[in-house]
Amino acid sequence: MGGLTRVRLGYTPPPEALTELRHALADLAVLGLEPDPEAEILVGGRFDDADLDGRSLRAVIVPWAGIPERLAEQLRVRPHVDLHNLHHNASTTAALAVGLLLSAARGIAEADRQMRQGVWRGRMTEDRGVLLSGKRATILGYGAIGHCVGEVLTALGMTVDGIRRSNRDRLDDALARSHVLVICAPLTPETRGLIDRQRIEMLQTPRLLVNVGRGAIVEERALYECLRDGTLFGAGVDVWYRYPQEGDEAPVWPSEYPIADLMNVTLSPHRAGDGEGIEGLRAQAVCSVLRDLCLGRPCRPVDLDRGY
Amino acid sequence: MGGLTRVRLGYTPPPEALTELRHALADLAVLGLEPDPEAEILVGGRFDDADLDGRSLRAVIVPWAGIPERLAEQLRVRPHVDLHNLHHNASTTAALAVGLLLSAARGIAEADRQMRQGVWRGRMTEDRGVLLSGKRATILGYGAIGHCVGEVLTALGMTVDGIRRSNRDRLDDALARSHVLVICAPLTPETRGLIDRQRIEMLQTPRLLVNVGRGAIVEERALYECLRDGTLFGAGVDVWYRYPQEGDEAPVWPSEYPIADLMNVTLSPHRAGDGEGIEGLRAQAVCSVLRDLCLGRPCRPVDLDRGY
Repeated sequence: MGGLTRVRLGYTPPPEALTELRHALADLAVLGLEPDPEAEILVGGRFDDADLDGRSLRAVIVPWAGIPERLAEQLRVRPHVDLHNLHHNASTTAALAVGLLLSAARGIAEADRQMRQGVWRGRMTEDRGVLLSGKRATILGYGAIGHCVGEVLTALGMTVDGIRRSNRDRLDDALARSHVLVICAPLTPETRGLIDRQRIEMLQTPRLLVNVGRGAIVEERALYECLRDGTLFGAGVDVWYRYPQEGDEAPVWPSEYPIADLMNVTLSPHRAGDGEGIEGLRAQAVCSVLRDLCLGRPCRPVDLDRGY
Repeated sequence: MGGLTRVRLGYTPPPEALTELRHALADLAVLGLEPDPEAEILVGGRFDDADLDGRSLRAVIVPWAGIPERLAEQLRVRPHVDLHNLHHNASTTAALAVGLLLSAARGIAEADRQMRQGVWRGRMTEDRGVLLSGKRATILGYGAIGHCVGEVLTALGMTVDGIRRSNRDRLDDALARSHVLVICAPLTPETRGLIDRQRIEMLQTPRLLVNVGRGAIVEERALYECLRDGTLFGAGVDVWYRYPQEGDEAPVWPSEYPIADLMNVTLSPHRAGDGEGIEGLRAQAVCSVLRDLCLGRPCRPVDLDRGY
């Protein structure tokens, strides 16, 4: 096998993406789908301890954004194994965040539901949407996704405050200047529960919240109650507190609170990063990280303490 | 009254907007709400012939975008009266157009409906949205609204072809390069029915259509059938073929075809230009046109033949 790097794919890419990966890396790596105790690199989000104890293992690539908690724990005790993840779907995720914000601000999903009953909301009634142009947004999590969101909101006439780990002490000031909070941050010990009722109330009215990061960044009860009592004018939420498990049948509710009964929230089934063509983008991004690792090029791993 | 211009407001602004208008124009105009045969300028969209035959009348300002057909006919035979309209809500309308496009591309409204039934579309099923980044959009109607839409789509990673009257001969070429058609054009003899099945089919698949211009620009039957048979992946529509009339009770359907039964369209009740705060913007825009007219500054009137 000469200098070829042994890589195990612990997830199943679509056939055309697998072919593309093998072709693109033919000169550098051998890609297998079966457990391989000699693997130097694993690609996937869920592995047994035995997989991670392979004596040649030096890196794991999670083929999406975000880090599964169990994998983070497993790698914390194996500091010789680097962890990488992908940002292939930043623009995809950002676009859905903008779509959810516009739906929350202008009542797009609600108006659509009412038109299907023959009710012309805003024509027959007096309720009105929030105009975004001229208003300010705090973007919590100002990495690849947050920057994409910021560019679109700027084009919509908004002013943007980007908050990341290094300037998180400015979060409360930013909220107090903003009408809109868009959460693109990863879930870390520092972001878990960071957005509670007190911080939601810091926003200027009418208040809008979008979450495409992780559900647990926003306190579940605060989200429900702020929507129900009008503290939030509206919200668009893609990431949740409960998820369907394999074999579950509908209905599966995303929260222990009856949030799906509220009219001022647009609910999205955790698909911000998904769309037609995304597997091609994923394969390209996996390929790029694998190529860097095989060639020994610099490639910043995830900092497990920071969580990204 | 010295040099004060007599203006009649033939619509009823909210009290605070009226106060703002009168205050801002105190040195230039007297604003009345009652019919005034001596009025030099009328503001409104619907007038009797008698109103338009006042001997001092020189201009009518329609306090929104678009020109009512009856008023256009009335002014065609009174060429000494200039017609003006407003572009105060260009960014508002553009934002809704983008929201409808994202909803159509990513199935936001449909996913929300399904989540309310406990169904996680895209998690439990295989259908996927269209990624906009990297794709091309034709914007039909490239004035104030179209330019705003273009800036946001560019920030979303799209390439934009703007089509207006002066380059309309390039429409078919633009469609053939695009996946997305966003209609922001006014209804004119040239745009009525301009988008038929043949032109929809010119788009590349997956095809997306957004209409915030006027319903009749898209052939009604073509829109319905192209959505139903999948020629269009999705559409977001704010402007319609039928509207509720005063006194109508729900349900009022927006088309003679059962378009509200289709899942791949996001329906919006003609409120792209509306939102909280819009009356303030409208008053500012009316004020700006009135000021120009009172001071004799250049202020391009609507060309009735062009329709804008």
